[in-house]
Amino acid sequence: MKENYPSKLLEEAVDAISSLPGVGKRTALRLALHLLRQPSEKVHAFTGAIDRLRDEVHYCSTCRMVSDTLECAICSDPSRDRGKICVVENVRDVMSIEATGQYHGLYHVLGGIISPIAGVGPSDLTIGDLVKRVASFRESAVEGDDDSDLEVIFALSGDTEGETTAFYIYRQLLPYKVKTSALARGLGFGDDLEYADEVTLGRSIINRQVFSPQ
Amino acid sequence: MKENYPSKLLEEAVDAISSLPGVGKRTALRLALHLLRQPSEKVHAFTGAIDRLRDEVHYCSTCRMVSDTLECAICSDPSRDRGKICVVENVRDVMSIEATGQYHGLYHVLGGIISPIAGVGPSDLTIGDLVKRVASFRESAVEGDDDSDLEVIFALSGDTEGETTAFYIYRQLLPYKVKTSALARGLGFGDDLEYADEVTLGRSIINRQVFSPQ
Repeated sequence: MKENYPSKLLEEAVDAISSLPGVGKRTALRLALHLLRQPSEKVHAFTGAIDRLRDEVHYCSTCRMVSDTLECAICSDPSRDRGKICVVENVRDVMSIEATGQYHGLYHVLGGIISPIAGVGPSDLTIGDLVKRVASFRESAVEGDDDSDLEVIFALSGDTEGETTAFYIYRQLLPYKVKTSALARGLGFGDDLEYADEVTLGRSIINRQVFSPQ
Repeated sequence: MKENYPSKLLEEAVDAISSLPGVGKRTALRLALHLLRQPSEKVHAFTGAIDRLRDEVHYCSTCRMVSDTLECAICSDPSRDRGKICVVENVRDVMSIEATGQYHGLYHVLGGIISPIAGVGPSDLTIGDLVKRVASFRESAVEGDDDSDLEVIFALSGDTEGETTAFYIYRQLLPYKVKTSALARGLGFGDDLEYADEVTLGRSIINRQVFSPQ
């Protein structure tokens, strides 16, 4: 439907809002008219919060996580296990893993995933930074103690792109003799066998775990 | 899920975005992280368009439609039929009717609908302005020509609130002896009888139209 906007200002706002992913023109118009009905100060608080986010946010100099400070809260927390680096695609993945409360190591945010189709290569990601991190961990380790524990955990998506990225990084880290692991894949907690897809169920059988109730 | 935001700035932006109707925290986070990945000037263009909409847009002094000028493009168009005023709830309704290309009169935007549940009464709407418009139309009509054509068309929603609002305005306009009409209700164009709800089908029978093919 060709819209005939009654106002150029309205049209520009709708264009701006509909540039967001997953927001069509119709929703954008609804949101623009909603904002128009709000008090001026509320709209300015809305746009101000977005401007400040874009202008003032930092990325942690170590793990590239979004942060208000140069080093993020996780990297600067002395209680976190420095012998573990969990490699994730993006900021949301860190938040998801943190929400489980099950992980107490550090992170490394790649800022994407290797995808030839999307034109994303290794140099577009923070893989070089990760290799340097691992190298400097090794250098700072006690002389002769080559086995000081460093585990790199791949928490990437389970598709080809995720596996390609994990494999690429794995190869880059080979000289540093780190322990590498990946997220367990299998049936979800409480999942029914009947509804599981074949690949997941197949992997669940191959990667079956020791069952030893006390 | 209690989110633990890695950054106060991110949290504030997510709060702002999720204050939009129909946008949850999860979507807001996705949109905030999307904006964070955009070039700075693109984000400022986004927020600037919204700020300008809120700060600079006008409402037509006659019909209360959104406009860049004091009188909107429709009210100031000499080719529109000044003897017809179509009463609608909001700006979007004007755009929908304009998109049909079937109406060439003027509009009056109420800015809402009478809803005791939502606490919206007649004085919260532009009903008073409409009554003044009709009164001044009558005054400017040629002396003694009491029947000069003025039709007020109710294009409001078909629920109780829409009908209440139309009835309230109808009563307010009684002294001015205007012609009043309402949108035809019935089966949609191409609709199947089988799937029509009973009320709509019932009204379609009561309001049946003359069928006289040439």
